[in-house]
Amino acid sequence: MPRPREPAPIYLDCDTGIDDALTLGYLVAAGAELVGVGSVSGNVSAELGARNTLDVLALAHRADVRVAVGAHDPIRGSFHGGAPGVHGANGIGDVVLPRSDAAPTGETAAAMLSRLAREHAGRLHVLAVGPLTNLALALDADPELPSLVAGVTIMGGAALVPGNVTAVAEANIFNDVLAAARVLDAEWPVTVVGLDVTMEARFEQRHLDALLEGPPVARALGAMLGTYFRYYTPVLGRPSCALHDPLAAAVALGELEPTLAPVVPVEVDTTEGPGRGQTIADLRSRFIGYPALPGTRHRVVLEVPTGFGDRLAEALLGL
Amino acid sequence: MPRPREPAPIYLDCDTGIDDALTLGYLVAAGAELVGVGSVSGNVSAELGARNTLDVLALAHRADVRVAVGAHDPIRGSFHGGAPGVHGANGIGDVVLPRSDAAPTGETAAAMLSRLAREHAGRLHVLAVGPLTNLALALDADPELPSLVAGVTIMGGAALVPGNVTAVAEANIFNDVLAAARVLDAEWPVTVVGLDVTMEARFEQRHLDALLEGPPVARALGAMLGTYFRYYTPVLGRPSCALHDPLAAAVALGELEPTLAPVVPVEVDTTEGPGRGQTIADLRSRFIGYPALPGTRHRVVLEVPTGFGDRLAEALLGL
Repeated sequence: MPRPREPAPIYLDCDTGIDDALTLGYLVAAGAELVGVGSVSGNVSAELGARNTLDVLALAHRADVRVAVGAHDPIRGSFHGGAPGVHGANGIGDVVLPRSDAAPTGETAAAMLSRLAREHAGRLHVLAVGPLTNLALALDADPELPSLVAGVTIMGGAALVPGNVTAVAEANIFNDVLAAARVLDAEWPVTVVGLDVTMEARFEQRHLDALLEGPPVARALGAMLGTYFRYYTPVLGRPSCALHDPLAAAVALGELEPTLAPVVPVEVDTTEGPGRGQTIADLRSRFIGYPALPGTRHRVVLEVPTGFGDRLAEALLGL
Repeated sequence: MPRPREPAPIYLDCDTGIDDALTLGYLVAAGAELVGVGSVSGNVSAELGARNTLDVLALAHRADVRVAVGAHDPIRGSFHGGAPGVHGANGIGDVVLPRSDAAPTGETAAAMLSRLAREHAGRLHVLAVGPLTNLALALDADPELPSLVAGVTIMGGAALVPGNVTAVAEANIFNDVLAAARVLDAEWPVTVVGLDVTMEARFEQRHLDALLEGPPVARALGAMLGTYFRYYTPVLGRPSCALHDPLAAAVALGELEPTLAPVVPVEVDTTEGPGRGQTIADLRSRFIGYPALPGTRHRVVLEVPTGFGDRLAEALLGL
């Protein structure tokens, strides 16, 4: 995993999505070395996600970043149609962005990931903020992948807090449970940034107001956030929204150093029961400070410093 | 459910067990109207649990309380042999108590529960601090039971904290998953006192020392606690133990009023997957204060006042 402030080439896997759009803006603002982006069906279809990704990158003056269309369907079953009630019908709050001249690369997202892992062998960091289908497909196609990748950071799961799709399951995991299990079972280090911390990282009304009065890129992102706020306000009990994907990006970049992130066994519930899609982190050693267990490699982020909303807004206002 | 300070006849279902022994002492000390006790296999076999229960009751000068031997095996499968590493080979820390002259009643625990529910129709409170086999058997044999019982309080499960048998499952639920599902699905109000609060309720060394220097009943309970402390000290990181069953008793009696106990849907994971035995409480409405949902009837205790160890020690020293 990249250490704080130490730049690493990043492959982003996303389902753009309002908070994915914020993440793209944040990665650009933070000067991340974004070497490629793959899309996956989640908040929207992989096709629409790629389109949104290209348009947001162009908006943020990074039309040069290559984008690959990834998996439309999860490993088993079919894409459920996305979350228009959360992200709007077009995935970005029904904001119509100028259409980027750039087109997807033509390779699959899984092929892009595999290629980039070789081009940046031992250095590439994977940041996955959608369902993990592309990563799972890449693992299946390329058994060497775990040894080539420096680290993986995912936005997904919930360890000690409720889920957001079911009582225990978070959407990115739930939307492709088998892929999530494949990714967490693979022999690479995964940092799990789940609802434990992402539901606590918020934009409040003041952040939204600041974006809406900011420069054009910030204004466009602020316009998207209207839809996101409408979904989250009754969930959170106040005008605000959760910053799921941007928080995972900040952790991946080392811009935000978790204050509690034990390395513990994590597995995904792939049953058809009520626990389906839960990321089961074994946190039983909490009273003794989570001593290292042999063979464990998953860092579960349980606490991060407060104030991420301020930092994110500041970064986006600088675009 | 009994309101604070309002006495109600109580049927106790237990698997005595060190913290069950504390619970018996606490119920006696608190002047609870203990109308019957059933045993079930869990910490020890149902047979040994009944023996321990009789002996602890006699020690506490309540040899008059009737005790029924309950189910030896869970609804499906066989009794696993108990937890001698936690409770000692005889279940009460290998302390040899004077043998009570009293014998079990001869009825099953399930039959006793059903009988008591009729004798105290609309008033009986059920306090279950072991696996829920007897309650499930009683529900199967007596479909009217839920309408006859005022309320059920169980020590079991874990909502927002890790389990103690698996990463997500607590022992009483895990030891008879099908029974737990049966009890939580039945049409009676259940107060769930799980590891969220019971792992935080502790005896510290000073409580143990006080008991060991106290009157004979307290001394005997203190002697049992040596074994319990040996198990819990490396788990908790300091000489101490968790007060699972006594805390549930205090909540059932209304002696301890939970400060956070939302009424939410709860289901038991009965799959064979990694979530087996988890009590899945739907706490997604946490940011808006858990508004009442139609049809929900399970009160999940998430917070109780601190200082229960002091109160329990004081009560036991009064025996």
